[in-house]
Amino acid sequence: MEQTLILIHCTDAVGLVSSIAHVLAGNELNITTMREYVDESTKRFFSRIVCSGKVVDAHALTDELRKVLPKGAQVSVNPRKKKSLAVLVTKEPHCLADILVRYFFNTLDAEISCVIGNYDTLRAFTERFNIPFHYVSHEGKSKEEFEKELHRLIYSYNPDYVVLAKFMRILSPIFVAHYQGKIINIHHSFLPAFMGANPYQQAYTRGVKIIGATAHFVTDDLDEGPIIAQDIKPVNHTYTAEVMRKAGKEIEKAVLVKALSLIIEDRVFVTGNKTVVFD
Amino acid sequence: MEQTLILIHCTDAVGLVSSIAHVLAGNELNITTMREYVDESTKRFFSRIVCSGKVVDAHALTDELRKVLPKGAQVSVNPRKKKSLAVLVTKEPHCLADILVRYFFNTLDAEISCVIGNYDTLRAFTERFNIPFHYVSHEGKSKEEFEKELHRLIYSYNPDYVVLAKFMRILSPIFVAHYQGKIINIHHSFLPAFMGANPYQQAYTRGVKIIGATAHFVTDDLDEGPIIAQDIKPVNHTYTAEVMRKAGKEIEKAVLVKALSLIIEDRVFVTGNKTVVFD
Amino acid sequence: MEQTLILIHCTDAVGLVSSIAHVLAGNELNITTMREYVDESTKRFFSRIVCSGKVVDAHALTDELRKVLPKGAQVSVNPRKKKSLAVLVTKEPHCLADILVRYFFNTLDAEISCVIGNYDTLRAFTERFNIPFHYVSHEGKSKEEFEKELHRLIYSYNPDYVVLAKFMRILSPIFVAHYQGKIINIHHSFLPAFMGANPYQQAYTRGVKIIGATAHFVTDDLDEGPIIAQDIKPVNHTYTAEVMRKAGKEIEKAVLVKALSLIIEDRVFVTGNKTVVFD
Amino acid sequence: MEQTLILIHCTDAVGLVSSIAHVLAGNELNITTMREYVDESTKRFFSRIVCSGKVVDAHALTDELRKVLPKGAQVSVNPRKKKSLAVLVTKEPHCLADILVRYFFNTLDAEISCVIGNYDTLRAFTERFNIPFHYVSHEGKSKEEFEKELHRLIYSYNPDYVVLAKFMRILSPIFVAHYQGKIINIHHSFLPAFMGANPYQQAYTRGVKIIGATAHFVTDDLDEGPIIAQDIKPVNHTYTAEVMRKAGKEIEKAVLVKALSLIIEDRVFVTGNKTVVFD
Repeated sequence: MEQTLILIHCTDAVGLVSSIAHVLAGNELNITTMREYVDESTKRFFSRIVCSGKVVDAHALTDELRKVLPKGAQVSVNPRKKKSLAVLVTKEPHCLADILVRYFFNTLDAEISCVIGNYDTLRAFTERFNIPFHYVSHEGKSKEEFEKELHRLIYSYNPDYVVLAKFMRILSPIFVAHYQGKIINIHHSFLPAFMGANPYQQAYTRGVKIIGATAHFVTDDLDEGPIIAQDIKPVNHTYTAEVMRKAGKEIEKAVLVKALSLIIEDRVFVTGNKTVVFD
Repeated sequence: MEQTLILIHCTDAVGLVSSIAHVLAGNELNITTMREYVDESTKRFFSRIVCSGKVVDAHALTDELRKVLPKGAQVSVNPRKKKSLAVLVTKEPHCLADILVRYFFNTLDAEISCVIGNYDTLRAFTERFNIPFHYVSHEGKSKEEFEKELHRLIYSYNPDYVVLAKFMRILSPIFVAHYQGKIINIHHSFLPAFMGANPYQQAYTRGVKIIGATAHFVTDDLDEGPIIAQDIKPVNHTYTAEVMRKAGKEIEKAVLVKALSLIIEDRVFVTGNKTVVFD
Repeated sequence: MEQTLILIHCTDAVGLVSSIAHVLAGNELNITTMREYVDESTKRFFSRIVCSGKVVDAHALTDELRKVLPKGAQVSVNPRKKKSLAVLVTKEPHCLADILVRYFFNTLDAEISCVIGNYDTLRAFTERFNIPFHYVSHEGKSKEEFEKELHRLIYSYNPDYVVLAKFMRILSPIFVAHYQGKIINIHHSFLPAFMGANPYQQAYTRGVKIIGATAHFVTDDLDEGPIIAQDIKPVNHTYTAEVMRKAGKEIEKAVLVKALSLIIEDRVFVTGNKTVVFD
Repeated sequence: MEQTLILIHCTDAVGLVSSIAHVLAGNELNITTMREYVDESTKRFFSRIVCSGKVVDAHALTDELRKVLPKGAQVSVNPRKKKSLAVLVTKEPHCLADILVRYFFNTLDAEISCVIGNYDTLRAFTERFNIPFHYVSHEGKSKEEFEKELHRLIYSYNPDYVVLAKFMRILSPIFVAHYQGKIINIHHSFLPAFMGANPYQQAYTRGVKIIGATAHFVTDDLDEGPIIAQDIKPVNHTYTAEVMRKAGKEIEKAVLVKALSLIIEDRVFVTGNKTVVFD
């Protein structure tokens, strides 16, 4: 028995589930798990369907489904399984280490194409896992030059996603445009609280009792892209900004890897500035 | 536009979703939310479907659905909306109070038929909410007599569910048999840890770092029925058994009311000794 | 054996604990629990000490302690045990109900002096608990007139704290000045995210995956006062602003009652715009 | 300014804090952080004190403190800072990997003396971090022989603690006796629920809605030693035993590393079958 994964995102309409289920039954596919969601405010329909049955011709099934769905429907049958990731880092190791260890033990079902650092700090660690590490310094370069170099390198690997694993440079809209909906960032605060630089210092100054982290897609607006996952940790008055920073790293890596898992299992749809997550 | 709620529980089979969706489309019903789950180990299929469309004849639709489903399928179309609850208590007020306040402000969508106490302690509080309170003492009676009296009283209200809101008497299998799958209990521990009496004393003695509570359906086996909801709270060495008990009450009432909400919104299926919860 | 509670807040200095402990031993007081904290950035010392021993003369002990402490030290020996609260509400019942039920069953160790509403909505519920309810409408009055009326009424009860239990009017600095450090508010978001009006609508629009609530002291700056307690709840794409609002109420009441418990047990010190909480 | 750490565990008595503080002041030590706890049921006193001031003669200060404390008091001044750990593993990498990565980046403040596996599976990974790996198979040996070999090896490293990082062999009382209070185990359930083998299968069968993990000291009674840390994760009906196992690994490694951090920072006291944790 083969498994078939189908992703559908389209305008809502009467009888969508029936139409889809009819096509699948006609292809001798049995629905094992079906998740669907209708956003009433935007009238969008989202579905993630897992079927068992015979091997399907993905192109033919996509066409067949499109015919019964509203115009402009996005249909994906058996999207590429093993996503490839380019991981961008600066100096902090915790997120990268978590990704590489999971990769090493096959608990993160993705390929790591390469690691790129704007410092050389994490080379030794990365190379222990036999992953190519590239050092692309931002120093002495214009933002444009730096990003061109970055882009050229990433482009050569053609990854499915670019992961900013504590990459501490702000990317320009031009760069972001190259990877629309494909850049995932971990922000070290519970967005939208403490946007911008030094969130733990901000959290300390404000005297919050909870800190958090946010994984989100990167858009032109810094820290404003669609949120994929968030988590938090209680803190108290004894936490200095430095201790918060340390405690925050645990949340950051957990949230980033959760977001990556959701994405590589094709559980995340983006709609407007939000995500629909079938977890 | 009317809303129609459909619950289906049957043996799994190929094309179930398609068959169901076909019947619904034929009745001009549009699926708004569909949750489904197949238990691979028992080959059982569960679905909770919300449709919008015209008003349906519940009996006719049930029959139509049964025809396309495997033999023995349980189908429920628009189950009674406002469930009625008989609440059994002893002396502790926290769970009862939470239920009555929510009832008073319409945030628990159920009728409270009556409150029955084996002590008279909670009468004054209950009557403040204009709910009948019955005092059925267990003292000087055999278990059989006590339960007969209890049963007669509950029977006269014919409630959809019997809620043990810190009712500290163990019910016999004979009593339980009258209300198969309709008695909900809150147990003051994270089951299956600390079954039986005095769980907080047990938790204190064991030196656990987390305490919890469990809402479950009552079966013949004490503390062994299908679990509906559980939650926990971290504790530390400064918690005496008494402080644990106090802290535990917060969890108990939250877990019980969560379980009740799930049940009265028809989100809970029982299968064997487990629950399928579409929350 | 009597219990003595001692609160100290002063400039840090060498040997403070030794000096304090020496005074206590000299008074035949045995330290049962001692919590202390030094804020290194502001060089402030905070301590909450529980002693057992003979009954003390609070004034004499306060004087004795002050003599060994840095100038300007705040010392409180056996602060008033049963704090009195004036509760201000608008229309939403959940926070008020939680407070009144706990008051009724003696699980919130405080007096409720009165409930004041700028609508009459919660009168019936409040009076069920034999608590005086006052209706002070803001309509047809200037903010100044409204607050004068409010102040006159509260003043007549002379409460230890004023609790804004979903009181939906912004209080002026003039009003706040009357109750410096004595007004506690529950804000329906995880501050500093979503300050101001309609936080759940803001949270919905932003597509966050976690919502929260914040209990804080009220200062001149709206939503900017010292935070006492915060908590959160995960949400997902299926939550409309309305469903978030409903889910949020559970957090709001839990956080407010947690903050009140901490305050009435004298566990909260305010320092600058932050709190030190010995929980 | 030097930091001095003092640990005290003794019978409770009147004036202990005063006596201790007096000795410290006499040594020109200023108390920065003092945590103390009195177990009322056993009349034991525990304290962890951090002082700043001049460098102390640890032996002299220990003696001085002992003189003012009840007979039999355990006093430790500046216990060895960098604890050394021998890590025992079987085949599962997640706990070991978490420990090694933290070790590599200096976020776990301990030495890893060696890793010992009863399978050779984790050699390659361990050696990447330049840590000696020893393969001690249990096959074809009596328990006694196996444990003798294990003991000889561990003994040669003389570690402060032996960490069972998913070591799947039950150790005999004889072995345990060699390392009284020095063996830390991670159990893959929320103890005391699901003791013994295959806890995730047990959890699946029972249909729990929360799974957990427990780090504890190992004593003669399997899974019954003093609990150091516990954490949990909500699950639902879609979790098979296998999926629970996978989800559980995240909790296991987090709980184990939390327990290790507490221990190597000298924050854990053992008393009877419980722990006092100053976190």
